[in-house]
Amino acid sequence: MTDEAKIGVLVTVAYDGTNFHGWARQEAVRTVEATLTGAVRSIDGTVDEVRGSSRTDSGVHALGQLVAFDTSKTAIPLKGWVLGLNQTLPDDVAVRSARHVPVGFVPRFAAKGKRYRYRLHTEPVRSPLVRDRAWHVPRSLDRQRMEREAAAVVGTHDFAAFRSASDERTMTVRTITRVVVETDPETGGLAVVVEGTGFMHNMVRILVGTLVDVGTGRKSEGTIAKALASKERGDAGITAPAHGLVLDEVHVELPPGTDDRWPP
Amino acid sequence: MTDEAKIGVLVTVAYDGTNFHGWARQEAVRTVEATLTGAVRSIDGTVDEVRGSSRTDSGVHALGQLVAFDTSKTAIPLKGWVLGLNQTLPDDVAVRSARHVPVGFVPRFAAKGKRYRYRLHTEPVRSPLVRDRAWHVPRSLDRQRMEREAAAVVGTHDFAAFRSASDERTMTVRTITRVVVETDPETGGLAVVVEGTGFMHNMVRILVGTLVDVGTGRKSEGTIAKALASKERGDAGITAPAHGLVLDEVHVELPPGTDDRWPP
Repeated sequence: MTDEAKIGVLVTVAYDGTNFHGWARQEAVRTVEATLTGAVRSIDGTVDEVRGSSRTDSGVHALGQLVAFDTSKTAIPLKGWVLGLNQTLPDDVAVRSARHVPVGFVPRFAAKGKRYRYRLHTEPVRSPLVRDRAWHVPRSLDRQRMEREAAAVVGTHDFAAFRSASDERTMTVRTITRVVVETDPETGGLAVVVEGTGFMHNMVRILVGTLVDVGTGRKSEGTIAKALASKERGDAGITAPAHGLVLDEVHVELPPGTDDRWPP
Repeated sequence: MTDEAKIGVLVTVAYDGTNFHGWARQEAVRTVEATLTGAVRSIDGTVDEVRGSSRTDSGVHALGQLVAFDTSKTAIPLKGWVLGLNQTLPDDVAVRSARHVPVGFVPRFAAKGKRYRYRLHTEPVRSPLVRDRAWHVPRSLDRQRMEREAAAVVGTHDFAAFRSASDERTMTVRTITRVVVETDPETGGLAVVVEGTGFMHNMVRILVGTLVDVGTGRKSEGTIAKALASKERGDAGITAPAHGLVLDEVHVELPPGTDDRWPP
């Protein structure tokens, strides 16, 4: 079978990360990548891989993970992929929409920007209804302090202090285009929205953890500016837990002529 | 031990109903009543029962279930009950607050009104993140039609057509004080808020199911007025599934002098 007989399909995928060991396939554990690959193969057994835009961690949720694959089943319409995959996929993962893309499309390289949302539940006692969707911080958070601190994040900076110890990338400069602290309707607490062109491992979670440390008064205002300057992980705040984080949207630029989509 | 040595405690309880067989204790299945009774007894082994305001069904959630019990541990402050119970209770149930009430207080009889919220997720494909919190109705709903129909519910009516076949009460007149169809921030779809002085088994779910049937066009406007007049269950719409329903708040009138509360 030659590539000319194939087409590329790009799907937007939502999942509840609670019962997944993250996106990336690993031996002997349940991952979103392996689950989705299995569903695609149940429709086209010749597909050998699916390519995701973001390697989300264990417990992190998604509304807008982008996943591409190449299929020789060129007669299946986009609607057929969405409905067919959702029939096979378990309850905690679903395909929201599908588009055509060139064969070999790699969402990770095509991604121009991403938006994450981090939810905080700030009531005095824990909430069963948002327990897997929000970090419970039973403290009074000073939103104005957090907003002022968040402003220091926006721009192009060396974020070496804001990544996990396991991240070994040498290029640590990233551009954050927007950080907003807003009321979260789901928890009644706060949500931190972070948008940027690229993120390192745990970067959003350490940014949020630092904002919370500033919001509770545990760290002083100016902590983020100081950590950006020192590049020392120890100058930033704690790593917020995974279960408050959602990958909301990944922005990709598609070649002209690939604007069909289902649902329209 | 005499009653004089006891005090009454009223707690507001939240739960994710997904993994409970409803509120009411039954043999050999997991219920909220039995779970909560066990937690109270782990603090005061002499408590023989807890008394709930509402017998929620399997899968129905709560933010404001009210539960009373009498304890001889009169030295435990309200804060101690909230924190102590939450340490014992599993993740999917929590005590939000506590108040003192007279010994023997029965929330079911003291309830002057209740508010329920029913969530609808109306996008074309299912959502993993709200799957246990909202009914997935992948259809276009005419909100104006639903709002006009909802207006017919408000008032004092014989709701004999709006209860499950298993409900055998002979008094079927109830007063609904408010029905609102609003945008739901959690699902992006609609929420139906229903407030009233009393409800029969499945009453909210049948009201919502009928409103949805009118919203999709499956039933004509005027269906609710017709079913109220005929008192025939067959003239109302379908029973909406349990997992979209939350018992939001129960309003009780407390005797003067019982206004201490934790959190304050």
